[in-house]
Amino acid sequence: MTDVLREITLEDLDALEIGAAILGTGGGGNPYIGKLRCREQLRMGRKVPVIPLNELPDDALVVSLGGIGAPVVGVEKIEEGEECLRALRAVEEEVGQKVDALISAEIGGSNSMEPILTAAQAGLPVVDGDGMGRAFPEMQMITWSIYGQRSVPAAMADEKGNVVVFRTTPSDKWLEDLARSCVVTMGAAAGLAQAPMRGEFVKRAAIPNTVTQARNLGRAVLEANAQNRDPVQAVIDQENGRLLMTAKISDLERHLKGGFAVGQLSLEGFGAFQGDTGRIDLQNEFLIFMRNGIVEVCVPDLVVVLDADTGLPITTEMLRYGQRIAILGLPCHALLRTPEALAVVGPAAFGYHDITFNPMKPNGSTS
Amino acid sequence: MTDVLREITLEDLDALEIGAAILGTGGGGNPYIGKLRCREQLRMGRKVPVIPLNELPDDALVVSLGGIGAPVVGVEKIEEGEECLRALRAVEEEVGQKVDALISAEIGGSNSMEPILTAAQAGLPVVDGDGMGRAFPEMQMITWSIYGQRSVPAAMADEKGNVVVFRTTPSDKWLEDLARSCVVTMGAAAGLAQAPMRGEFVKRAAIPNTVTQARNLGRAVLEANAQNRDPVQAVIDQENGRLLMTAKISDLERHLKGGFAVGQLSLEGFGAFQGDTGRIDLQNEFLIFMRNGIVEVCVPDLVVVLDADTGLPITTEMLRYGQRIAILGLPCHALLRTPEALAVVGPAAFGYHDITFNPMKPNGSTS
Repeated sequence: MTDVLREITLEDLDALEIGAAILGTGGGGNPYIGKLRCREQLRMGRKVPVIPLNELPDDALVVSLGGIGAPVVGVEKIEEGEECLRALRAVEEEVGQKVDALISAEIGGSNSMEPILTAAQAGLPVVDGDGMGRAFPEMQMITWSIYGQRSVPAAMADEKGNVVVFRTTPSDKWLEDLARSCVVTMGAAAGLAQAPMRGEFVKRAAIPNTVTQARNLGRAVLEANAQNRDPVQAVIDQENGRLLMTAKISDLERHLKGGFAVGQLSLEGFGAFQGDTGRIDLQNEFLIFMRNGIVEVCVPDLVVVLDADTGLPITTEMLRYGQRIAILGLPCHALLRTPEALAVVGPAAFGYHDITFNPMKPNGSTS
Repeated sequence: MTDVLREITLEDLDALEIGAAILGTGGGGNPYIGKLRCREQLRMGRKVPVIPLNELPDDALVVSLGGIGAPVVGVEKIEEGEECLRALRAVEEEVGQKVDALISAEIGGSNSMEPILTAAQAGLPVVDGDGMGRAFPEMQMITWSIYGQRSVPAAMADEKGNVVVFRTTPSDKWLEDLARSCVVTMGAAAGLAQAPMRGEFVKRAAIPNTVTQARNLGRAVLEANAQNRDPVQAVIDQENGRLLMTAKISDLERHLKGGFAVGQLSLEGFGAFQGDTGRIDLQNEFLIFMRNGIVEVCVPDLVVVLDADTGLPITTEMLRYGQRIAILGLPCHALLRTPEALAVVGPAAFGYHDITFNPMKPNGSTS
């Protein structure tokens, strides 16, 4: 199941939803509403071509798109549906030029769907890649920024008619802070268009093929379920990941802090992991997995929580005491493991100054 | 002392500072730093012509300028000096046209100086008027907005290089909320340019002649002090105001709430007011004066607190227990007393739903 997407079709959407949610590592927002909107567009006959990175013209103008806000709010406050389109138009006004293609800021979670929806509305293609290869909580945690492309001018639009343009900021962290302030005022959900950039740069800096990757990953889960195979194993096989633990949630601490879901899970192993204890730390996304007090997998590698039975991903807002889960580690892309990337998305960037990132051990190795 | 300003000269600045601070009714920020910057500009030979409203061409493009932030922060965090200029340039970019003249958003407090400083930097004239005729805590409390001119596009710039453009908002209250969120993130001080508008509208909606008014008011205080006359009486005479009480501050409650200074003063009368008790409520500005539990003067009329001896204005952040003060009521301009104005700047807009605005009794009447 490695065939490459050339166009988003109705058949891809369910698979993409599941794959994107798995890559969201508990955060990134639920892609469900976005999927429904995309489905509506495709049923109306709109086409969304997918451009592989190597076919993207060097001089193409590409804009990075995504929703910004608190996932827990997105569950109840449904977007009007053209937030990202209005943000895109505002960035086009800023640069005085029409955009040639859209790319997802973040393949993990709901932002997998936003560029597809906007592409359908605007009659544009999407690029097969994204700026995170997973989900991250803040906007400067993106390969555009890490590899030298400023995210300004950026524009944010909400469902009420507010359009705010961030014309210049001294850093992308400043953009994050200002956009975060605005989105809280807007009611914790808005569309954001950022980082107008050339194809030549996107080819170097995007995490490649992640739209295809998410679709293929979701398809692997769907097919495993249809064929009565173990869906958890299907995820591991598809992503070259590793089963870290099957466990019951024995304690759950989770609160909102500055618009983010922050907390930790305590785990009691079962099955092959009987007797083990575990802990997962989260900041919107699952960041750190510890077994018996020792860090085993940490950000930017992916800590994924699946329902132990169905293999479907569990997001941080769906966690509850007593849940039986499978915890997987999935290796992140090499572009997130460079020193310049780790300075922005490594454990220290999340406040874990005493944890050094060690790439997770691959499948089949002893832990 | 009713001569009309045609140009801001070095001699006007000290008087303007005092007059603007009095019209600030305790808020609006301290004009002192702005005065020093304006002085520097004028000493360099820059000219700042003042255009009376009736000479403003109908098709002139005018932009409203001011600082936004917490006055108490402005005391320690000094602006870099070109914040409003950068905000002005951003609005010019938005409308695709150079601005012909600047007008103060708010004559009361530091925003009396900001347009003069920016005018000197940009080589523009200032209009003799403003959008408040005093100081108010929020941006929608401005005659542009009250009389039908939207404040967007607006732009905000800080000393760090952030430039945020508010391109569209569904209301000026939304602009206020978004700009307030951003300025808190920026460190509670920024320059704001808003409401690009035509001369024809400015003539109808501006509180007229307030630059001249502030200069003349300050000059009255300075001359009274120089001539050993009572400066408090000079303010009353100049503004057709009324002495409400001479009093000692017997209790002071003041805290920061959502970026605003909120609180109340308890007063014990002395001199002719011996035996009276009073109370002043404040939200950045002094809003309500009560004598013996009865409201006597309330917003939008001006409640002014002066040092009982020097006649110099006391801002909310300078209040302290035991201070001996003179409280004056000054009548606001008729443009703030219309039903559409009172809906935005009357007592109910500040949460006083049980207080009806009654124009303050003029000088010499019995209270």
